[in-house]
Formats: sequence, structure tokens, C-alpha cells
Amino acid sequence: MPKGILPHINNPKDIRSLQLPQLTQLAKELREFIIDIVSTKEGHLGASLGVVELTIALHYVFNTPQDKLIWDVGHQAYGHKILTGRRDIFHTNRQLHGISGFPKRAESEYDDFGTGHSSTSISAILGMALASKLKGETHRQHIAVIGDASIASGMAFEGLNHAGDTNANILIILNDNAIGIDPSVGALKKYLTNVKKGTAKDENIFECLNFSYSGPLNGHDIEALTKELNRLRRIEGPKLLHIITTKGKGLKKAEENQVVYHAPGKFNKITGDLLPKTALNQPPKYQDVFGHSLVELAKKNVNIVGITPAMPTGSSLKYMMQQIPDRAFDVGIAEQHAVTMAGAMAAEGLIPYCNIYSTFLQRAYDQIIHDVALQCLPVIFCLDRAGIVGQDGATHHGIYDMAYLRCIPNLIIFAPMNEVELRNIMYTAQLGLTQPIAIRYPRGRGVMVQWRQKFSKIPIGISQELKKGTEIAVLSIGHIGNMVSHLLEELGDSHKIGHYNMRFVKPLDTVMLRKILSTYKQVITIEDGCKIGGFGSAILEYANEIHSFVPIKIFGIEDIFMEHGTVGELQKMAKIDQMTLKNYINNLLNPEKYVR
Amino acid sequence: MPKGILPHINNPKDIRSLQLPQLTQLAKELREFIIDIVSTKEGHLGASLGVVELTIALHYVFNTPQDKLIWDVGHQAYGHKILTGRRDIFHTNRQLHGISGFPKRAESEYDDFGTGHSSTSISAILGMALASKLKGETHRQHIAVIGDASIASGMAFEGLNHAGDTNANILIILNDNAIGIDPSVGALKKYLTNVKKGTAKDENIFECLNFSYSGPLNGHDIEALTKELNRLRRIEGPKLLHIITTKGKGLKKAEENQVVYHAPGKFNKITGDLLPKTALNQPPKYQDVFGHSLVELAKKNVNIVGITPAMPTGSSLKYMMQQIPDRAFDVGIAEQHAVTMAGAMAAEGLIPYCNIYSTFLQRAYDQIIHDVALQCLPVIFCLDRAGIVGQDGATHHGIYDMAYLRCIPNLIIFAPMNEVELRNIMYTAQLGLTQPIAIRYPRGRGVMVQWRQKFSKIPIGISQELKKGTEIAVLSIGHIGNMVSHLLEELGDSHKIGHYNMRFVKPLDTVMLRKILSTYKQVITIEDGCKIGGFGSAILEYANEIHSFVPIKIFGIEDIFMEHGTVGELQKMAKIDQMTLKNYINNLLNPEKYVR
Repeated sequence: MPKGILPHINNPKDIRSLQLPQLTQLAKELREFIIDIVSTKEGHLGASLGVVELTIALHYVFNTPQDKLIWDVGHQAYGHKILTGRRDIFHTNRQLHGISGFPKRAESEYDDFGTGHSSTSISAILGMALASKLKGETHRQHIAVIGDASIASGMAFEGLNHAGDTNANILIILNDNAIGIDPSVGALKKYLTNVKKGTAKDENIFECLNFSYSGPLNGHDIEALTKELNRLRRIEGPKLLHIITTKGKGLKKAEENQVVYHAPGKFNKITGDLLPKTALNQPPKYQDVFGHSLVELAKKNVNIVGITPAMPTGSSLKYMMQQIPDRAFDVGIAEQHAVTMAGAMAAEGLIPYCNIYSTFLQRAYDQIIHDVALQCLPVIFCLDRAGIVGQDGATHHGIYDMAYLRCIPNLIIFAPMNEVELRNIMYTAQLGLTQPIAIRYPRGRGVMVQWRQKFSKIPIGISQELKKGTEIAVLSIGHIGNMVSHLLEELGDSHKIGHYNMRFVKPLDTVMLRKILSTYKQVITIEDGCKIGGFGSAILEYANEIHSFVPIKIFGIEDIFMEHGTVGELQKMAKIDQMTLKNYINNLLNPEKYVR
Repeated sequence: MPKGILPHINNPKDIRSLQLPQLTQLAKELREFIIDIVSTKEGHLGASLGVVELTIALHYVFNTPQDKLIWDVGHQAYGHKILTGRRDIFHTNRQLHGISGFPKRAESEYDDFGTGHSSTSISAILGMALASKLKGETHRQHIAVIGDASIASGMAFEGLNHAGDTNANILIILNDNAIGIDPSVGALKKYLTNVKKGTAKDENIFECLNFSYSGPLNGHDIEALTKELNRLRRIEGPKLLHIITTKGKGLKKAEENQVVYHAPGKFNKITGDLLPKTALNQPPKYQDVFGHSLVELAKKNVNIVGITPAMPTGSSLKYMMQQIPDRAFDVGIAEQHAVTMAGAMAAEGLIPYCNIYSTFLQRAYDQIIHDVALQCLPVIFCLDRAGIVGQDGATHHGIYDMAYLRCIPNLIIFAPMNEVELRNIMYTAQLGLTQPIAIRYPRGRGVMVQWRQKFSKIPIGISQELKKGTEIAVLSIGHIGNMVSHLLEELGDSHKIGHYNMRFVKPLDTVMLRKILSTYKQVITIEDGCKIGGFGSAILEYANEIHSFVPIKIFGIEDIFMEHGTVGELQKMAKIDQMTLKNYINNLLNPEKYVR
């Protein structure tokens, strides 16, 4: 019989059979279990450590899964997963075919609504509560847990504003740890700080929105939590419980350095010390090329400003925030605001570099069209994490950007093949561009150890002929072009195959394309984005327009949502890997086997 | 010399040379001028009448255009346009090549930021204020005027939350008339009502967000307004002035029936009586087919719910709100919330019809991907105003939806050719669909007087062969197919031309397509959406996949933003009109002139 309580918790019913004092012991074991596994398997640490007591208290007091429970963003749901039947597979977290790092409906009946992007939980729990009402399920409770960074996003406000106008029986738990991935910002954060200090006036912003407010409460006091949750479950209508927690709670280093320990990689589970990463002489991360190059440019061009919606660390805008704080803005989880504000700054002659992860730019789609592109304001969008992002999985892949941006007039779309191209397009963009540009680059490292080269200008809409050929032209966009180059090296010096680094999804290099389409017998396009409407589709549209009949084979991501795994594994599954391309080309080169 | 003051106001400087008492007279004349022109030329009436005094007071107190002034949404900016040099061309409002119905940067130096979609003004004015600060332009004032419906949208909250955390010198004027296009909803609206009644507690939601709050003030008292604006211009930091106005002020009927007089069409300028519309025996508006059919379906299927973000009248969801109020939700200007809430309702077994104008769905793009499609929740999106919308112009055309939705896995995309198809797909969608669907239909009327036919099921992914041909196949999507049918009638009984109502943008009817591509010598596609990534592009992708070499000609909207005008004028400009198609087909049919 295994020792302790956690090994006996196979579902929340087992928690409910415990005595209150045992919950503290369970919290201790759960925290150790999380640290144990995340220290070797990696993942999001700090958020889940911070809500260990809350997680236990919720499943103790409420009747999950009959009662509905939604974790906003979901970084903090590891404890929830472990306590709801996934303890023994938790070590597969974020691995290919393993469990997801986020709540996921398909994974468990306890995951009531999939999350990943922030601030969706209030809308979702309200929808469920209104549905329960209509279905006459009056016994059902509806709870959402949302952090102070996430509740400050516009979508959360929309949910609060609607919920407060209903008598829906929902409980919003504001998990206030004053940090998202980076420290929280904004007026609401300041206000919450005043509430906590007791220096706020006799007023409450949530009461203004017609919520019953209670708190602030110590979110690590499991007895107080269960008591208050028990009280709240008997109160009708929209309620908000404000709890104070410490991100990384229970691991000293994680408490002290919350940004690093959000997702620390491997670490010593006793001391918390990070295990050394073997990064010597490796190429830099693209995000750092962005971050450092922006500082370089901004030092010379006083009109440059930097904007990030709550991702100073992830985007590496932090370098500019440290060195030129007046001109670098963290606006919080507010992609919509970030984009329109950038547009207004461009209208006034500033040169805004607005850095948003590809997947999060989906949040500001209307603003790109309506506020920036329509007015042709030269905002420079830097789309980090474009393409397959790996372990974060389906919610976070940046694979739709080329398709959804390509239809927007006035917008330039560029994908650098390497660090120097990223630097040079960033340099080019601040030389008096008169239209907006989106620069997409992937998560992870580039390919050049010597990347800090002198800036030079990239002519807009001009591609690169990397290798001339006679029969097959491979047209690549962005970083994936390096794989093509490696493949061509591997295939040896075949004069038949040409390789073109197209760089611009828009405007296309039509001069080069016309040449390619009139020279080669077969065109292959490859991209790390969705096939529908993407880069290959752009080539197809142009070929059709000039009545070319050269066969075009498009490699890209099929019309399905991709799960989590390493980037390499997923590229293989998506059939945009080197082996797949090699087999295809070998088939073409071998005329006997040639099947178009 | 023309009588009165208004004829002498050629720009705001002329206002500033007036004595305070003259402003009241100017207000009277401006109001009459607006009524005069809008009564015959049509346009948005109520909003502009409500801010006549505010408009004059702002230009009187502030030094526009050096001081920056942004009108949120812009429905209310007619007075602003008339006072800033556009009095004599105001009668061209919303006409082809005339002035825009919304503020527009390209039109005037007084239009500091283009608007159209709601809730952008706070982000924009903050961006400008921060830019002024960086540029050392300390003299410049920055003002945004935003209504109570618009300020409740998430994006506005994001702007407030950031602004309150800066010392930016901005003034937000909350124009509280308790109505957007339809009456405002939500907890914030209730709160503002309490503030106005004096029954709010000693607390202020805007002060919580670190704004200096003043008001509520009577927004029709021009003297009080100028006094307060003068006081505020000397106060540093973020400020919010809350004014109370009456939408439609000065025209009795417009005050009494604010929804109708938002944009009343032609009316008698003295009595306000609406001029009769010659709608006898005309086909219905698509929106009404939606509205009435939804009620029919919902009466039989208790799981059906209706959702609109602040468009009960425009979408005709009002019929369901009147007849089945428990199951019809107006969530305010909150597209993001609407979509995710719909997803959660679908997760709980309800059948949500979420009606959003095509152009506004851009606001909820991430939510469609992340909350609905990724989880494959069967939400039924009804996209009204898809395609070219006419006089509302560039900000409002619904021409990107097919492109931006097509790349989303799991999503069905359907465009009905007529009323019966709209009804039947609405019927089909509630028969246990297991994935989300987007149904796009245009502004305006359909083609069938007898449209209330018995429901029948449409098989998913199946197109319609409307006419068999031998040489040229025309593939149309949605309502524009009627134009093709008319054209084929006009061309007489040519056995050479076939016509296919494809209906489904996704999944494509690949069986039919394969047949078409192996039968005809030429394929033509036509759509009222952007060419890039749109319906034609989908056909191209499929043809490429099956190695078809049939020439495909794509008719659609080129890669530019379309301005305002009638739908007919704009279709002609976009070359998706009957004449253009006719000429193209005639060229094909005449072999001597045949140029591919």
C-alpha cells in the first residue's frame, strides 16, 4: 500500500471522504508530486503550485463533475488533473500522445471547457450556467478560476458585464497573485493592490458590476477557503471571491523568481536550482534576435517604440523595457488595445514594433484590418511563435497567420529564413515604410551563431534564389527553408533542383515567380502553416492568374488541429519534415516511379 | 450674405470667434442642417442630433486640429464634419465618391482616426497622447468621445485599464444616452443608471481605474459643457467626463423612437414622419428570414437559443427576444464573449444561433478558432451583412469572412443563394449537427416573395447543379448566384454554359467538382468576397490537388479596401457585376476573340 494520501485519490470523491485536517497533508503531497514531475519532465510550474490549496478546496466543497469548473488559461490546472484521475499519466504531460498541458474536454469529464488563451472562462461558465438554468438543472454550481492578469483583459470584462446583468448562479474566483507570466500591469492591478492593502476607498469595482464580492482571502488557508466556498455555494446570483496566492508557493526559488519559474525547464526538485542548459555556441532564439535588434535600432531611431501585450519575457521586449523604458510598453493581456494603440502611434509618426505571438494575434484580427490596414498605418507587427510551437499544443500553434493575414489589403507579410533576415527586415521596416508589415518567425532557435551582422536593407517583395535548378523548384517561406537547404545538401549536387527563399508572402515576387513558372517542370511549396489559404495557395493563385500549367505540389499543414509534442515530431506528423520532402523529390527524380 | 451663423462656419476657428450665447443659436442651426439633409439623403440621424452641443463645445474649447479628437464608432460625427469644412459637401454623405459616413483620416485633418467599429477610440487617443508625450508636444490635448454602449465593450476596458496606469493627458467623454443602436444592456449600464439617479454608492468605477471622474452633466447645456471642458483641459492625467444626452435630440419622433431613428431612411423634416417605403410584394430582407425562421424553429426545438452582440434590430433577433425572451440573449457589444458563451452553451447541449455581422465577427476570430472550432462545438454562426454592404463603406463590408474562416478546421461554411436555402440550412443545423457552421448572407433583400416554404434538410457538402452545360461552368457561392441565373436567362438558352450553386465553401462538394473539372473546358467562379484565399481559391486548391488543368477564372474582390456607395455601384467597380461577367462569357463563346 503506497504511503500518504495522494496515491489513494483517484477522483474527487476520494477527497470528499477525507477529514478537513487531512487536506493540508494532501496539499503538501500534491505540491511535492507536481515539483517531482515538472522538475524532470518540464512544464508550467509556478501557477499550479500557487493554487494547490484552492484546487483541493474546490473539489472538496463542490460536486465535480456535476458542478462545472473552468480554469482560465489552464497553466494552473496540473493539480486539478492529478486529482481527477490523471495522476498516473501526469508524467506524459505535454508529450506526444500524452496528456495536454491545458484542460481539454476530450481528455476528461472534469475538464469542462478547454482553455489555453486567457480570459475565456467567465464567458464559458456563464454560458454553462445559463444553459443549466434553461435545462432546469438548478442543483448545478458553476465556478471559474481566473487570475488577476487575465481578468484585466477585455473579453473577461465583457463576460463580467453580461453576467452581472443576469441572475446566473456563477462563482468567479479571482486568483490574485499580481502576476501573469510577467508581473501584472494596468489600473485594475493597482486597484486590486489597494484593495489588498486596505487603502482602497469604500468602493468595489465588482460590486459596481453587480457581483457579490467577498475577500480578499488567503488562498493558501485551506480551512478558510473551504468555509468560504461552502458559504458561497448557498448564495444565489453572480459572486466573485478574491483570493490572494503566491505563484510558485512551496518552492522557495520559484516564489522568489516567479517569472523564471513560470515554466523553468528542468530543475533540482530539492533546491529548485535550474539545471544548466547546454546552450554554448548555439544559435540564438529568434525572440532574442528580435529583442536585441530592437534595442540596437531604437537607440539610433528615436521614433521607434515597442509594444507587448503581457509578454515582455516571452517576446524579449524586456531588453528594450530595461534599456529604453520610456518607449517600451507592456499593455497587459490586451491584444486588441495593443494593435489599435500601435496604429494611433504610427498615425502620429512613431514607428511601433508591436510584438504578439502568432496565435494571440487572432485576438486582434479586427483591429489589424479596421484600425491599421484600412488606414494604411505603418505598424510593424512582429509575430513570434509562428508555425508549430510544440508542447503547448493545439491552442498555441501559430499556423493560421499566413492564411488570415493574406486577405488583408495594404499589409506586407514577411517570414525570415534566419536571424540575419529577421534583423534586416526589422531594419528595413523603420526606413520610412508607408504600409503595415507582419514579420512572422518561429519559437526557438535560429541557425546562425554569428548573427549580429551589419544591418542591410531588404527590397520589399523581392525573393532570393538560393540555388538554381532545371527541373524542380522548391519554394520555401521562412525558417523551414533551412530544412530544404539541408535536404538539398543531403541529396548532393543535383543540378535539377532549385531552391527559392520567397521571404514575402505578400507582395509576392512575381518577377521571380514568372521566371520559375516558365523554367521549371515542377514547383514544390513548403510552409509551416495551414495549407488552406496559405503561402502555397498564394503561389497557386498567381500561377492561375498567369495561366501557368506547371504542376504545383503544396506541403503544409492539413485541415486539422494539431496536438502537442516536440516541433520535430509534429512536423513529421504534418508531413512537412525533411524525410517526407526527400521521398517526394526522389520520386520525382526517378521517372519510372514518377506519379504526379 | 446667407442668414444665420452656420453658413459662416468654415472651420472651427470661426466657432472660437463666437460669443458664448451665439453657440446656442449655432446648435439650433446645426441640428436643422443635419435634419434637413439626412431627411432626404438618408444616413445616421439620432446619434449626431444627440451630440450637437457637445460637438460645438469641443471645437469651441479645444484647439482642433492641433488638439486630437476621436469619435468612437463615428455615427455621431455628422456635426463634426459639417463644422470642419465639409458643410457644403455634406449632402454627398455615404454616396459613391462622396464623403464617408464615418470619420476618415484621408478626408480631413480634423478626422484624427478613422472609426466605424465600436470601442477603438480610447486605445487610439491613448496612443496619440503617449506619442505626443514622447515627441515633447506638451501643449496638445487628446479627447475621445465614446457612448455608453461602446465603453462596455472589452476593447474599451483594455484601453481604460492601460490609460489609468499612465499619466497620459487624455479626456474620455462618456456620452451616456443609454442606447447604442438598440438600448444598452449589461451591468455597467445598470451601474451608470444608478449614478445618474444618484442611487449609486459612494464609489465610482472609473475612479477605481485611476481616472479623474466628473459628471454626470447635462450634455445639452452648452454653457455648462464649455465651462467643464475648460476646467478639464487644465487638469493633468487621465480624465473621464460623464455627460447625459438624448439620442435624436431636437426631433420629437426621433427622441421617442430612438431605435427607428438611428438610421431612419427618408423622413419629413418637420413632422419627423417616415416616408413610406415601397416594399409591397418585395422579397423579404434576409435578416427577417433569419429572425422569423429562428422563432419558428425555436418554438419546436426547446434547445435552441439566440445570441446577438447588441444587434437585436439589425439582425432581427428581436422577434425571438419578443416571443421567447428566456432563450434570446443580447449580450451588448461583446462579440468575443458572445462566441465563447455560445460555445459553452453548445457544450451543454443547447443549440446556439449566434448572429453577428460578418465584419464584426472579425472581433471574435480567436474565439471561433480557440473556443468553438478546436473543441468542435456545434455553434451556428449566422453572419449577416456578408459581402458588400453599400453605404456604410470600407469599415463595414463583410468581404473577408470566407478567407478568414476557410482555414479553420472543423468549421462548415455555407452561403445560401436565396431565402429558402437560408431557412433550410438553419433547419438542418439544428438536426444534430456535430460541428460548428457559419452561414453567411448579405444585407438587404432576397429574391422570393413566397419564402415561407416547408423546411427541408440540406445534405452537408452537397452543391446544386442549376443548369447543365458543355463548355463553361459557372460556380457561384451564395446570393450572387441569382445574378448568374439572370445572366444565363439574358444570354438565352446556351447549352454551352452550366451553372452550379456551390453553397458550401467548406466542405466543398468534391464529387460534383471532380465531375465539373472533367467535363467542362473552362470554369468560372464568382463570389462577393475577397479573391485572396476566398471561394475561388478553394476551387483552385482542389483542382490543383486532383491535377486538373481546366482553366479557372476567378471573379471576386481585388486586394483593395472598397469604399462606400450603393451595392450595385460597388459590385460594378469590383467587376463582379452582371455586365462584366457577360462580357467575359461572350468573349469565351466567341472563339475568334477567345483569350484565356
